[in-house]
Amino acid sequence: MSGYLWAKSDTSVNEHVQRFCAGEDVILDRELLPYDIEASRAHVRGLARAGLMTEADAHTIEEALGTLAGRVESGDFVLDERYEDGHSAIEVYLVDSLGEAGKRVHLGRSRNDQVAVATRLWLRARLGALREGVLAAAQGALAIARRHEMDPMPGYTHLQRAVPSSVGLWAASFAESFAEDAELLAMTSKWLDACPLGTAAGYGVNLPLDRVGVSDELAFGRMTINPMHAQASRGKGEVQALAALWQVMQTARRLSWDLSLFTNQEYGFVQLAPEMTTGSSIMPNKRNPDVVELIRASAAIVGGAMAELQQLVSLPSGYHRDMQGTKPPLVRAVRTGLDVVAILPGLLEGVRFDADRMREAIDGPMHATDRAVELSRDGLAFRNAYRQVGEELDTLGERSPDASVAARVSPGACAQLMLDEIERRIDRAGDA
Amino acid sequence: MSGYLWAKSDTSVNEHVQRFCAGEDVILDRELLPYDIEASRAHVRGLARAGLMTEADAHTIEEALGTLAGRVESGDFVLDERYEDGHSAIEVYLVDSLGEAGKRVHLGRSRNDQVAVATRLWLRARLGALREGVLAAAQGALAIARRHEMDPMPGYTHLQRAVPSSVGLWAASFAESFAEDAELLAMTSKWLDACPLGTAAGYGVNLPLDRVGVSDELAFGRMTINPMHAQASRGKGEVQALAALWQVMQTARRLSWDLSLFTNQEYGFVQLAPEMTTGSSIMPNKRNPDVVELIRASAAIVGGAMAELQQLVSLPSGYHRDMQGTKPPLVRAVRTGLDVVAILPGLLEGVRFDADRMREAIDGPMHATDRAVELSRDGLAFRNAYRQVGEELDTLGERSPDASVAARVSPGACAQLMLDEIERRIDRAGDA
Amino acid sequence: MSGYLWAKSDTSVNEHVQRFCAGEDVILDRELLPYDIEASRAHVRGLARAGLMTEADAHTIEEALGTLAGRVESGDFVLDERYEDGHSAIEVYLVDSLGEAGKRVHLGRSRNDQVAVATRLWLRARLGALREGVLAAAQGALAIARRHEMDPMPGYTHLQRAVPSSVGLWAASFAESFAEDAELLAMTSKWLDACPLGTAAGYGVNLPLDRVGVSDELAFGRMTINPMHAQASRGKGEVQALAALWQVMQTARRLSWDLSLFTNQEYGFVQLAPEMTTGSSIMPNKRNPDVVELIRASAAIVGGAMAELQQLVSLPSGYHRDMQGTKPPLVRAVRTGLDVVAILPGLLEGVRFDADRMREAIDGPMHATDRAVELSRDGLAFRNAYRQVGEELDTLGERSPDASVAARVSPGACAQLMLDEIERRIDRAGDA
Amino acid sequence: MSGYLWAKSDTSVNEHVQRFCAGEDVILDRELLPYDIEASRAHVRGLARAGLMTEADAHTIEEALGTLAGRVESGDFVLDERYEDGHSAIEVYLVDSLGEAGKRVHLGRSRNDQVAVATRLWLRARLGALREGVLAAAQGALAIARRHEMDPMPGYTHLQRAVPSSVGLWAASFAESFAEDAELLAMTSKWLDACPLGTAAGYGVNLPLDRVGVSDELAFGRMTINPMHAQASRGKGEVQALAALWQVMQTARRLSWDLSLFTNQEYGFVQLAPEMTTGSSIMPNKRNPDVVELIRASAAIVGGAMAELQQLVSLPSGYHRDMQGTKPPLVRAVRTGLDVVAILPGLLEGVRFDADRMREAIDGPMHATDRAVELSRDGLAFRNAYRQVGEELDTLGERSPDASVAARVSPGACAQLMLDEIERRIDRAGDA
Repeated sequence: MSGYLWAKSDTSVNEHVQRFCAGEDVILDRELLPYDIEASRAHVRGLARAGLMTEADAHTIEEALGTLAGRVESGDFVLDERYEDGHSAIEVYLVDSLGEAGKRVHLGRSRNDQVAVATRLWLRARLGALREGVLAAAQGALAIARRHEMDPMPGYTHLQRAVPSSVGLWAASFAESFAEDAELLAMTSKWLDACPLGTAAGYGVNLPLDRVGVSDELAFGRMTINPMHAQASRGKGEVQALAALWQVMQTARRLSWDLSLFTNQEYGFVQLAPEMTTGSSIMPNKRNPDVVELIRASAAIVGGAMAELQQLVSLPSGYHRDMQGTKPPLVRAVRTGLDVVAILPGLLEGVRFDADRMREAIDGPMHATDRAVELSRDGLAFRNAYRQVGEELDTLGERSPDASVAARVSPGACAQLMLDEIERRIDRAGDA
Repeated sequence: MSGYLWAKSDTSVNEHVQRFCAGEDVILDRELLPYDIEASRAHVRGLARAGLMTEADAHTIEEALGTLAGRVESGDFVLDERYEDGHSAIEVYLVDSLGEAGKRVHLGRSRNDQVAVATRLWLRARLGALREGVLAAAQGALAIARRHEMDPMPGYTHLQRAVPSSVGLWAASFAESFAEDAELLAMTSKWLDACPLGTAAGYGVNLPLDRVGVSDELAFGRMTINPMHAQASRGKGEVQALAALWQVMQTARRLSWDLSLFTNQEYGFVQLAPEMTTGSSIMPNKRNPDVVELIRASAAIVGGAMAELQQLVSLPSGYHRDMQGTKPPLVRAVRTGLDVVAILPGLLEGVRFDADRMREAIDGPMHATDRAVELSRDGLAFRNAYRQVGEELDTLGERSPDASVAARVSPGACAQLMLDEIERRIDRAGDA
Repeated sequence: MSGYLWAKSDTSVNEHVQRFCAGEDVILDRELLPYDIEASRAHVRGLARAGLMTEADAHTIEEALGTLAGRVESGDFVLDERYEDGHSAIEVYLVDSLGEAGKRVHLGRSRNDQVAVATRLWLRARLGALREGVLAAAQGALAIARRHEMDPMPGYTHLQRAVPSSVGLWAASFAESFAEDAELLAMTSKWLDACPLGTAAGYGVNLPLDRVGVSDELAFGRMTINPMHAQASRGKGEVQALAALWQVMQTARRLSWDLSLFTNQEYGFVQLAPEMTTGSSIMPNKRNPDVVELIRASAAIVGGAMAELQQLVSLPSGYHRDMQGTKPPLVRAVRTGLDVVAILPGLLEGVRFDADRMREAIDGPMHATDRAVELSRDGLAFRNAYRQVGEELDTLGERSPDASVAARVSPGACAQLMLDEIERRIDRAGDA
Repeated sequence: MSGYLWAKSDTSVNEHVQRFCAGEDVILDRELLPYDIEASRAHVRGLARAGLMTEADAHTIEEALGTLAGRVESGDFVLDERYEDGHSAIEVYLVDSLGEAGKRVHLGRSRNDQVAVATRLWLRARLGALREGVLAAAQGALAIARRHEMDPMPGYTHLQRAVPSSVGLWAASFAESFAEDAELLAMTSKWLDACPLGTAAGYGVNLPLDRVGVSDELAFGRMTINPMHAQASRGKGEVQALAALWQVMQTARRLSWDLSLFTNQEYGFVQLAPEMTTGSSIMPNKRNPDVVELIRASAAIVGGAMAELQQLVSLPSGYHRDMQGTKPPLVRAVRTGLDVVAILPGLLEGVRFDADRMREAIDGPMHATDRAVELSRDGLAFRNAYRQVGEELDTLGERSPDASVAARVSPGACAQLMLDEIERRIDRAGDA
């Protein structure tokens, strides 16, 4: 079988075992293939620069890789079970196209550094796409904050009515949170931005590879120097990427929880856009916020993937086949993340608030804190103010939610949302 | 689209959202479909018994379901994106086949109890298959123990050479462990063996359903009584099934770790069957134990799935769409488990031991404990014996590994492996 | 230092390292100490029966152990940093009390099987206590169900008002869930009920120990036969115990979520007993359901402990010091579980329902399902009924919540709660 | 009880509940107390600047806080069960010392932002200490690499002998890995470097606080603007800090695995310093690498803590008591991390290599890759070279390990370790 690089004539491989070993590798490698091709081109150019391949061969292989990249993009070349994995597919393709010359692409590298570099390139692209999505979500939340800046909304602690708050405060909290998440994605991407290509199977090779040149050509921020470290980074890099993604999902999970409660009829604060709800198979009266619930569920997918990766890589130095297991949780979690951030801006845009219901839900006792702070500011010790207000709770009903919101002047609070500063942070996270 | 049960004329559903909501549901439901059909047949018979459907209608629907089951099994009917999920596929099929009558199958149930009952039936079958596989692995380990009952092998603690041990002791430890795992699968299956059908969307229905009859017909051990509990069991049941599966994977992980070390050339204790190894793409000298490493990695898949499920179901009572998220980790983990147990017997059968290497690896100081125990038995306090032996370590080299193994007479130890009793436990776990 | 069993004269142990190695062992061993003493007594009797110790010595040691047990129970003997761990404390105590004879207790065992047997005995006791607590919680939920059997309460799916339900249905769902959890605790306890004592450091000993007798004396259901399996069970047993505990915490988490929502003012369905709430440091108007929230948080503690254990035990055969790490997550999680179940009955007993608020929250459209089912029962295909009701939602307001509850006659539903059967299951789980 | 801030006269709090609510809070707050005091001082100065407190009062309170800080540091003031938590302890202390004036410290803040700011200050200090420890470990690994730069050592993949490698390559892989981990700690610290003080209970206050000034005084990089985001950051920040810590533990886990194998007698490559090993209670012949094993186990503690935190914070906006649960896993994991990094440098320094054993373990076939690459470089297609070498494996025994190491010239590989560049990265991570 041409697909199996290591197949020697005497090998008889039990079919079940073969399937078990292959796993979903070929399918997952569809994600990585374009990046594997890109890295292969840089590798070939590096070989030529180092005098390890003729310029002519390099040119021919590069062109063939370019053609392959185009065919992959157009869907004309499909990675499937005919190949052991994406790495062999590239080589098989080159040999089929170019004969002997095609085989030279493998000089000075191994599947171990091939998958490592493709994963890093893929992660860079995906973390970038995630960041764009998260920034759009931040902008979406900011737009709500601007639109409803001073609209009163109850503020809860322990899910108990606590103090008057505002839609502006609520929405701005997501804008700032997503901005921080985006910044974290950028930081994480930078941490991961190291080129492992040229480390071969984890011990380097007896060839004067131009690793720095290859790393630069692939626009990496730095080169992973040590080959054993390059291998040992598998799992480590994946966990860290997912940690950053988890932060996004956690902000989204809080948003989902809030919307889930706010669309509940006892609250009745919010209506979702019709396209963000689905009907019930048994209850004709209902529109269900399935989208919101599925977003909430996504954090668990990312968290589970992290736990899987962490359990997986309790291993000594050197490549182990266990590391193949880093792909499924990574791809699964990142796909989920991309799906979620693609939906967030539309979800936010479609949220409609019921100002009356929210205002009604702000009852007299919720003004107690404002009152206690006033008394304290005027000289009463806070604990005494606290006790005094506790005795006059009934009288607080005359205070208005709007006045409370307008008086909340501490920086960041309802009357001082600092939305421009939050917007600057969003922009900065976009530039990072 | 006929597939969307809840679609009313005025619904315009954003396509992206739709895809996000659908997820892999249809694909995952291929696993559940045969069980969903089986439960649907029982449901229809129950409706007839309760006088809620004519015998004629019931008969017609049942026959159509039987035909569908056959077509699903033969591959003639394929669940795919034409359907929202397996539940609607069944109904669409019935309506297409039978017209109006087909619609009556949905009386008194909801997709919520449909998926719950199909999952329980599927779990029963899968846990049964897992148990069979585990018992075969236990027998495989027992066979090694019988074949190499008294063959000396070093025993390690802290990965340090500790005391002489035997292949029999080593192999029997897996036989007993797998036997216990199989028993746990049986117990867990029994705990899960409750029929949720007829609980509808989580609040029951205003119909005198024959739930006990339906439960009995589906051969459940009991009925889940309370409809809210039936819904809230989603996630709970899945986690518990995976907990039992994790135990199997943990025993397999220890086996993999051992084989991974034993096939390492520094140890050199073991050779795997050729079909259990693969070649290297860069190193022509190597045969790699990929199978062993992928088995080792499997525990992480199950552990990660458990963490995912546990995070997912932090929810109030009642169905939430988040619960759809219980399917992927469950199916993924169980498939992995089945793959692993399918390979274990062959893996064990093919293990070849190098008796000489193992005997050589038992050096003099490893007899220290035996000697200390002898001194203690003869009256010296153990601590004193311990100190005395510490001073005569050099003299222990004359003791033979075989004699040490033969003298290890405490029940369960090398000279007293109690293999018949372990076999009885395997058999008992098979009967449970 | 007499506490260090392995200290030879030439050993110089860096103090920091020593502290790192000790960890919290001594503190955690306070939990295990009584069980370690109990097992030591059985071990000594076993030695005597096997002729490995004189009856006189056995008697003397046994008496000293009895005295120690009493002193531990009374608080007169406190396990602290003077000792390396509980195991050495026992031995040090015996040597201090009895001189040379005290040293004989260690014959034929190791700290490895000592900790294993103490852990199993401790687990048996703790799982028993957990079961008692869970059964009390089940009874508490059942009492609510009986007290408010037919009191209407809204039923939600997707946190959207769905159909009329009842307090009886809600409370009975916890009664049944806790009953199943209790049964699982019993099953798990049975699975774990195997005696590892006499397996020494994992390879048995060259002594004809009476392991069966010791196992019987300690009232174990069976003996762990294989010494390597006994060691490898560390982590496995702990994970499984926590899996059962997690189920309890998951039921409690759902309860907490519900109470958290129900006590929220938008819902306003429930008031907690004053002693189950706390005040706010800043908001004099509030009583916060901290207890409920801390119960909700407990599932995460158990889940995290499981993940920790699963990551920990990716190891080859044989004892490794890593296994010491199984104690902290186990003890932490079990203590949390015991705290929670101790509070549940009182929490449940103190819940007060606001029948009016709940009845008001059941609006007209929530009767749609009932109506659709009626139409279906009378001959209309369900899908058609569904559409018809969708057009007459406005007319449903005349239907009464109480009538809806009374008509929900499917087994387990509001009008047919089967509380006696649930009680039987609770009793059965208590007997198991 | 003065300790309970919210206690009003009519409150009767069940003692068990009280204990459950308190948890280990007071003990954990010992970690936070110095930072809580520091933040309190800045808060008081901010109040004075904003005209919300007289300069005289501010001065008095500040002085008292300074005294308290000193007493805490000297051990003269101990936080214990007399107090509900660290926050109330500070206030109780101030009231006891200053009377009425002491109560004014609470103006404009809540325990919610108090714990948030103390946690961030604590994290900054702890992440800094972790970074120092990690950098020392990196230097320790680098020192080994320099000392044994070209010493041959077998290189493994799949734990199978693969190619000749070197101690230099092995040690440098840890130097680079720890350098990256240190950089990540710095990045993460920067991401977390936001001041939540002045956000009160999550909704700000009706006071013109000088939040920017307070943030600057506490040397934070920025202010958390939005009060709801400040609350919602609990759990998020903790998870991210532990993600960075996990990376350190994962590098340390790989090191431990390697040392665990290398000190195993079948390998015999390495001896640990005596103070890094412990004896056996039953086997007088052994010195066990407990320290190494406990380091290996530490990654699981951090991973489990992450899973616990992730499960915990599936919550809607606003403070919930669940968040108290973020403290134990955070403190536990960070303490573990600090313990590990404190030990790593000494562990590394004490490692002794057996050059002969390592050289012997490099057999002929391990030169196959070198040979295949030579053939490829000279024009043979790699696949053909691969096949040719497969047929001449027997002839490779004449090649020397040292020559192989010397010929491995690809950047980062054995003959080109780039240790100076790694050292620069270590230094840069120290400056970050």
